[in-house]
Amino acid sequence: MASELRTVLVVGTGLIGTSIALALRQRGLRVLLADHDQGAVRLARELGAGEEWHPETHAREEQHPETHAQAASASGESGETIDLAVLAVPPALIAGELLALQRNGTATFYTDVASVKVEPIERAAQLGCDMSTYVASHPLAGREKSGPGAARAELFLGRPWALCPTPDATPEARAAVLRLVELCGGNPIEVDAAEHDQAVAVVSHAPHVAASAVAARLADASDIALGLAGQGVRDVTRIAGSDPGLWLGILSGNATPVAEVLEAVSHDLAEAATALRALADGDGTATQELTQLLKRGVAGHGRIPGKHGGPAPAYVVVQVVVGDRPGQLARLFQICDEVGVNVEDVRLEHAPGLPLGIAEVSVQPDAAAVLTKALHERGWQVP
Amino acid sequence: MASELRTVLVVGTGLIGTSIALALRQRGLRVLLADHDQGAVRLARELGAGEEWHPETHAREEQHPETHAQAASASGESGETIDLAVLAVPPALIAGELLALQRNGTATFYTDVASVKVEPIERAAQLGCDMSTYVASHPLAGREKSGPGAARAELFLGRPWALCPTPDATPEARAAVLRLVELCGGNPIEVDAAEHDQAVAVVSHAPHVAASAVAARLADASDIALGLAGQGVRDVTRIAGSDPGLWLGILSGNATPVAEVLEAVSHDLAEAATALRALADGDGTATQELTQLLKRGVAGHGRIPGKHGGPAPAYVVVQVVVGDRPGQLARLFQICDEVGVNVEDVRLEHAPGLPLGIAEVSVQPDAAAVLTKALHERGWQVP
Repeated sequence: MASELRTVLVVGTGLIGTSIALALRQRGLRVLLADHDQGAVRLARELGAGEEWHPETHAREEQHPETHAQAASASGESGETIDLAVLAVPPALIAGELLALQRNGTATFYTDVASVKVEPIERAAQLGCDMSTYVASHPLAGREKSGPGAARAELFLGRPWALCPTPDATPEARAAVLRLVELCGGNPIEVDAAEHDQAVAVVSHAPHVAASAVAARLADASDIALGLAGQGVRDVTRIAGSDPGLWLGILSGNATPVAEVLEAVSHDLAEAATALRALADGDGTATQELTQLLKRGVAGHGRIPGKHGGPAPAYVVVQVVVGDRPGQLARLFQICDEVGVNVEDVRLEHAPGLPLGIAEVSVQPDAAAVLTKALHERGWQVP
Repeated sequence: MASELRTVLVVGTGLIGTSIALALRQRGLRVLLADHDQGAVRLARELGAGEEWHPETHAREEQHPETHAQAASASGESGETIDLAVLAVPPALIAGELLALQRNGTATFYTDVASVKVEPIERAAQLGCDMSTYVASHPLAGREKSGPGAARAELFLGRPWALCPTPDATPEARAAVLRLVELCGGNPIEVDAAEHDQAVAVVSHAPHVAASAVAARLADASDIALGLAGQGVRDVTRIAGSDPGLWLGILSGNATPVAEVLEAVSHDLAEAATALRALADGDGTATQELTQLLKRGVAGHGRIPGKHGGPAPAYVVVQVVVGDRPGQLARLFQICDEVGVNVEDVRLEHAPGLPLGIAEVSVQPDAAAVLTKALHERGWQVP
């Protein structure tokens, strides 16, 4: 599908819009920038993200039109076609902006990047937008900082980017948005809009609220308590530092799915508290529920994909016979170092009455063969 | 206070005990190791953590005594004094182990490293332990992996380590445990035991349960949903991968304080869900509550100390006059690069009708002077 992008218009030069613009500029595309906030546009331009968009009528700099498109024409300043318009504006503004841009024939194809998909798509259809040229999308990437000053061209590298084409979208429209994702270095994942919103409620939105609720407990904590804070709570609450206004918009746009997940989390925590109070009163049977919650947490955690997608890599266990002499394990680790094998874990198995036994060394799958070979060459037994 | 440690006994060669042993071995101390699990002792020994402890009667290797101390004598094998015994055993076992060791005069001073402090201290006193030589403590450090194979000598570097001496403890006992902390590279924080338990409920234990509850939602999620998981949920749920048995013990030992925090978090999440459902029904007034929770989360997050303790470092804003010409900001960043200044954030301020205005560049406090000097040298205005 020869759907090359040459000129892209980014409407909304916040963190996401400006990062997309920077990524595209790095790939040599022409990028046009627009935003209600002229300061944001200029900052994005100064950062190298592209040129300010001046539709032919030039009226927009004196007026402050409702939408960028009111003064737009079918093409950019030089008469060149705008292949794709990326709407990087809040979810509630997408449908109106899309309609206005389409009425002026601004671009060939359109996408948005909002964190929720069902509502913007429904509103766009209701308003009478041309759904054949619009493929909604959502890059799963971000930073706690917002605004163009925080933008980074590499923000999307290796990150998932959901695409939600409706049945009305043409293959060419889908190809154009896929090309955008490819140019930004993202991993495209096609998904139904409703499934998308449910998914991000579970893997993004509800976790954010949970992090805020945990962090809220620190607001009144003593300095001593904060002095004891370790890496665990830092990780749990990292995302709680994000801009509340931005997140209110995101959560509002996905209200019901998020509410469902929060109710489930709230319920689990209330049950855990009840079980703990029972334990404090000497009722030992409550440990079952607590253990079950912790185990479900382990199971859920284990399903998060590893760095390059797919299930988290299982380590391979290499079993090595280790004699009952001091220094054997130290020598074993030395060999691992020599051949560049990283040891993730080690366990020593021994049966009473038998020689010291087996050292079980956990390594990355592709390191197992390297280690086994090195050990054989040095006379070790690898059963 | 000349309280040098030369020989330390570590009872319980799990993650924490073995890591302490490794740290002390690196500092040249003699370390004796004991554990009910002979395999764990041998693994720790093989990893270089110390020598197996053989009290004079030598009876313990044939028997399987209730406690290590039943066969103990007043000193290690060579007659050398054991300056400090570190009890790295589960909280419920501390008091009994301490009593037995003290009855045999095993060491001069004693400490433990359990995650909770009130219960072990109370039980020790109830059992009739000598509270003058015992200073309870707790290193705030760990890994999701457990067991001696996961131990690291550097586990405690720069980490908080709580000390909870009772009024009965002598200054010498306190000094000995402080020396332990120093040798392991930790930052000692003296705190009342009850305040400690309340604090770790807020900054460690409840966050762990919250992480598990968020992760539990992923256990049944679709593969697509998991494919959309980004860094946010990974951070929130990282600690949910820890050993459930270990954490059940920790939570049980701090049941009431943890229950209180969990009830508060559960309440916040239930209120957030209610507000979201109201929003979904068109009731806009509910946004206030949501916004308040998010803001309290930002406030709490902001109180977590920076890497070296103390409040998170505020960035310094350097204001630079930027003319209304293309490429000015790019040139500014180039200068930052040239002089090794990392730009944390940048904002462009402009007033209508005036020259382009001021770029506000946020940098580390000690980089501000470097940047200002470099800009002056190059003819830029830094008001």
